[in-house]
Amino acid sequence: MELLKKRILEDAEFVGKDVLKVDMFLNHQIDVNLLDQIGKEFYRRFADDKVSKILTIEASGIGIACMTARYFNVPVVFAKKGQNCNIGDDVYMTEIASFTKGTSACVCVSKKYVGPGDRILIIDDFLAHGSALSGLIEIINEAAADFVGAGIVIEKGFQPGGKLLRERGVRVESLALVESIGDGKITFG
Amino acid sequence: MELLKKRILEDAEFVGKDVLKVDMFLNHQIDVNLLDQIGKEFYRRFADDKVSKILTIEASGIGIACMTARYFNVPVVFAKKGQNCNIGDDVYMTEIASFTKGTSACVCVSKKYVGPGDRILIIDDFLAHGSALSGLIEIINEAAADFVGAGIVIEKGFQPGGKLLRERGVRVESLALVESIGDGKITFG
Repeated sequence: MELLKKRILEDAEFVGKDVLKVDMFLNHQIDVNLLDQIGKEFYRRFADDKVSKILTIEASGIGIACMTARYFNVPVVFAKKGQNCNIGDDVYMTEIASFTKGTSACVCVSKKYVGPGDRILIIDDFLAHGSALSGLIEIINEAAADFVGAGIVIEKGFQPGGKLLRERGVRVESLALVESIGDGKITFG
Repeated sequence: MELLKKRILEDAEFVGKDVLKVDMFLNHQIDVNLLDQIGKEFYRRFADDKVSKILTIEASGIGIACMTARYFNVPVVFAKKGQNCNIGDDVYMTEIASFTKGTSACVCVSKKYVGPGDRILIIDDFLAHGSALSGLIEIINEAAADFVGAGIVIEKGFQPGGKLLRERGVRVESLALVESIGDGKITFG
């Protein structure tokens, strides 16, 4: 998605060889017009897949998921993390690792909102090691819902998540595939 | 807002005398069409206030803020909580208490995204004791930005936050004011 790549080139900050900061338009301050274009592009890619629900994970995924859901005219469900998992007993739960933070967190979704008959599109801001995405897929499988695919805003191609998931047959659509960051230069795939 | 009150009457669950669960359309599963109407209503109420930015707090506020920001054509900034506060040194930080959970959490906003000249509308899902709202106002004041007012989806009128904040001169616009919950019955103000 050219608009997004242009924005990354103009505004993103690179820290070392693997951290890409997009705080200024995606995951702290949010450019809602850009998110609208992102939602439109996800719709273009998944329009024929009979998506009935969008699943994401708090917090950065929620805005993107809502702006995307407008195009599909379907509800969003966001998985809750950590302390927020105390939403009752009736939940699907899994553990996901954060490689950036070196921690892992419990993630959960109420059984009321994901189940058989649902056709679920996962939306998230980043794909790096694939831990969040794998956890959400696990929840969809446990709920016996259909998993349509994943729409990712920025995929780090130099980290293994995307490759591993595609090898497992998962459909991953990334709007910007970053192949490398180094010396203040970024290369897209 | 009649559409919202109708939805609360139809779908919300009441736990005891003070907990109102709106998981099914507002803060776990999200009805994006309802959020769009909510955003439109906030715009109607604050259209003349020259809002330049919308401030909210993760996680449940984000979707509402994004759908509202579309109408104002301004960016959203969401305050980060707890562990997510490690976004650098250059942040405004405050402590907010959660009366429901009996805990308190650190909340922060990068100094890059709120500052003098900004005219800020706060958007949030609930107003009960007013701790989150007070914390966000504190951050706006510290940043020397202008605080326009607060748009709240559901205010619990039987808890003191709204009254205390209005006494301090804060403009609070609630779309549904719940005066009491008891015996499975809800009364709006």
